[in-house]
Amino acid sequence: MRTPLEQSILIQIRPEKADRDRILAVARRLVAAVDQSGIAEGMVVGSVARDTWLNGDRDLDVFMLFDPSLPRVELEEKGLTLARSIASVYGKRYQEKYAEHPYINALVDGLDVDLVPCYRVASPHQIQSAVDRTPFHTRYISERIGPYTDDVLLLKQFAKTGGYYGSDQMTEGFAGYLCELLIYQYKGFTPLLEAASRWKRYTVIDIEKIAEKEFEDPLVVIDPVDPKRNVAASVSAAQKFSFVEMARGYLERPSAGFFTLMEEPPLPQEEFAEILADRGTFLYCILLRTPSLIPDIVVPQLRKSMAALQGLLERNGFVVNRSDYCMQERLSMMVFELLVDRLPTVHRHAGPPVWERDNALKFLTKERPHLYAGPFIEDGIYVVEIARRHTSARTLLSSSEILETGLGKHVKLSLEEGWEVREGTDCWQEDFSSFLGGFLKKLSPLTRIRKMEGEE
Amino acid sequence: MRTPLEQSILIQIRPEKADRDRILAVARRLVAAVDQSGIAEGMVVGSVARDTWLNGDRDLDVFMLFDPSLPRVELEEKGLTLARSIASVYGKRYQEKYAEHPYINALVDGLDVDLVPCYRVASPHQIQSAVDRTPFHTRYISERIGPYTDDVLLLKQFAKTGGYYGSDQMTEGFAGYLCELLIYQYKGFTPLLEAASRWKRYTVIDIEKIAEKEFEDPLVVIDPVDPKRNVAASVSAAQKFSFVEMARGYLERPSAGFFTLMEEPPLPQEEFAEILADRGTFLYCILLRTPSLIPDIVVPQLRKSMAALQGLLERNGFVVNRSDYCMQERLSMMVFELLVDRLPTVHRHAGPPVWERDNALKFLTKERPHLYAGPFIEDGIYVVEIARRHTSARTLLSSSEILETGLGKHVKLSLEEGWEVREGTDCWQEDFSSFLGGFLKKLSPLTRIRKMEGEE
Repeated sequence: MRTPLEQSILIQIRPEKADRDRILAVARRLVAAVDQSGIAEGMVVGSVARDTWLNGDRDLDVFMLFDPSLPRVELEEKGLTLARSIASVYGKRYQEKYAEHPYINALVDGLDVDLVPCYRVASPHQIQSAVDRTPFHTRYISERIGPYTDDVLLLKQFAKTGGYYGSDQMTEGFAGYLCELLIYQYKGFTPLLEAASRWKRYTVIDIEKIAEKEFEDPLVVIDPVDPKRNVAASVSAAQKFSFVEMARGYLERPSAGFFTLMEEPPLPQEEFAEILADRGTFLYCILLRTPSLIPDIVVPQLRKSMAALQGLLERNGFVVNRSDYCMQERLSMMVFELLVDRLPTVHRHAGPPVWERDNALKFLTKERPHLYAGPFIEDGIYVVEIARRHTSARTLLSSSEILETGLGKHVKLSLEEGWEVREGTDCWQEDFSSFLGGFLKKLSPLTRIRKMEGEE
Repeated sequence: MRTPLEQSILIQIRPEKADRDRILAVARRLVAAVDQSGIAEGMVVGSVARDTWLNGDRDLDVFMLFDPSLPRVELEEKGLTLARSIASVYGKRYQEKYAEHPYINALVDGLDVDLVPCYRVASPHQIQSAVDRTPFHTRYISERIGPYTDDVLLLKQFAKTGGYYGSDQMTEGFAGYLCELLIYQYKGFTPLLEAASRWKRYTVIDIEKIAEKEFEDPLVVIDPVDPKRNVAASVSAAQKFSFVEMARGYLERPSAGFFTLMEEPPLPQEEFAEILADRGTFLYCILLRTPSLIPDIVVPQLRKSMAALQGLLERNGFVVNRSDYCMQERLSMMVFELLVDRLPTVHRHAGPPVWERDNALKFLTKERPHLYAGPFIEDGIYVVEIARRHTSARTLLSSSEILETGLGKHVKLSLEEGWEVREGTDCWQEDFSSFLGGFLKKLSPLTRIRKMEGEE
């Protein structure tokens, strides 16, 4: 029933036997180590546990299930101690990381292993933090996904190509668990695509018919183990419809391109300058030191900060065409493409309505250094024309006003150390050149795939 | 009870005895002429009939009341014939004019006389056109306004100073009849100002408690002779609150300035250029031949056309700070002050939502000469970046696209003959220099009065 194309793709994306054996051996070894501690129970979760990992994936999640009577502080303490001792015995190097609570990330036999302490609760109703839910997900999927593991692999690779695989905040996309649930709901890759190609603005999927809550997200997939949770909460409308678009395109004319990862090639500075000149827009970027935290924490803060700065620009009259952000190891960039970067001195400032007598009087008699016009009355509202605080986007972005917007916490801390504003072709920088190329030549996933095919 | 200030003002604004006698004599003579025709009855209406005209006013309205059984076409024919014969006997020169229906405007003894045919209906419910209502207004006011004629004079002069006297479309303000009703409602000039100083966003005055309809206008004064009509329908929020503002200012510190007409002085070209440079904005104007119709018809069309062109500018990305218009004998001007008059080539064009499958497919496969970016997906909507049609406000305002906006009928006909676009200091023209000065240095009436006082 698989097409020859899908068969050939599966050969590439299924884990190779040697790899598979090695990963499973490491998994078994680490679980045994947790069990032998006597204080916790080991459990492999994630795609390795469900046999739905893609060839080349090097991620292994081992959970350490502790007794739920243990106080939270002790769980963290004992959990980290155990994880550290296991990591130091089996791993090459390890580091402490922090999501909802701390865990250990270790390099073991070339695998990127997360050792995560959690509570061994009897039912999902009793979970104390999000990680306690994961073992239930693994059990739910493991019991059902057997016939569809190849379909899950195809979907994951498809979503990776489209740039919306992963529930991390960077991609806002389809988590592995979500891929598995979608495949299970529609019983296969092709039936899912057929359904998705007809998805409307809002889609609700409730496999176990247990929903206890209404969601406003563009895609709602009720968690079979937690009726109050939307597994697809992180999927943005843009990502949902990138999937819908690719589903339509694939059904119409399938090709290997739908499973072929294409990194945005770095954009040379010259070409960057040409594109920018062609567009005629005013590009500004802010460079800041990347906060030393995991992307799952930094990226949403960058997104929030970018939106806050876009708001600041627009409130000051600078029209933003598009904005984006990119987190890299050392530096992060927020980029703003403006249609207008210089404005006249005159700035209209609306005061109170004339019918609010006390406010109107205060406004009228206020001392002002210089008025260009007014006070005058428009639609019953007092207006004065005063000097604009920032007549150029550069002075605005360079001013401390940006620190008073709704920035993410750690992004704000980083900006307080300083930031750099660049303009036009100076925004180009080697390590951001792929990002900037993708930004300026922005395409939907299907358009990018078809374009690649056309160029071949 | 009159303050010495008000007494001294009244001496200036009450018609002089000689003038008064002359006007009343002309009025009597014309009414007698209508009566003698045997086909209609003469009646003086307007401020002369009510003894509420200002010194220097030269307007006299004589209505010719015909039998309501006369067909409309005959009314116009016979009415114009009679008016012409009277005008040619008593007047120096005359011309036919047209509002809701035709009438004769004649110069008689230095007075600007309108001879208007209408129906002599038994009650306001039977009126066939707006002019039939006028005799009822005159009767209503004449029977009541006696004790308050001085108050009406003060209010009219006060409103003239503020620039909102007259119901014509140019001023959008307070008609004579409205002034009379307001004075009658509050029993005097000062009590009216005290009430107005506390007016809220919406004000409803219903002297006879007969309202049969709700209005959304900022000021509603139910016509005592027609419960479905708002006498203040032409009063804009800006004008209502100009009056409110002046009322507060006068009560706080009365002065002759509130009754002293101040023409905006012509602004010399040099000073105009200085102000413009100081503001830093981009001024554009459109000059067109003034349609040969009365201001009451042309002015609302200019206002509508200006709003339509402002919309066109804004839809094309050119940010408008303010706009205004000015009708003069030969030429009319619409002026637009822009914050942005040049824009980059790139123009974002939103397409259909991805979930509208057929439209989405058509959009995706549409042939386009050149795309700067896209199609990409934002919030589930397809977007492409294409070449902007107009990258400068001048080419937009010079293009035939302006003829496809919601222009007033006769303004459109005039523009179809051609128009001139001017920019920056070239907008200056001798006969529009007062208008342009008032536009650039826009002030509320009270601010203007206080400023004059400060300069004295």
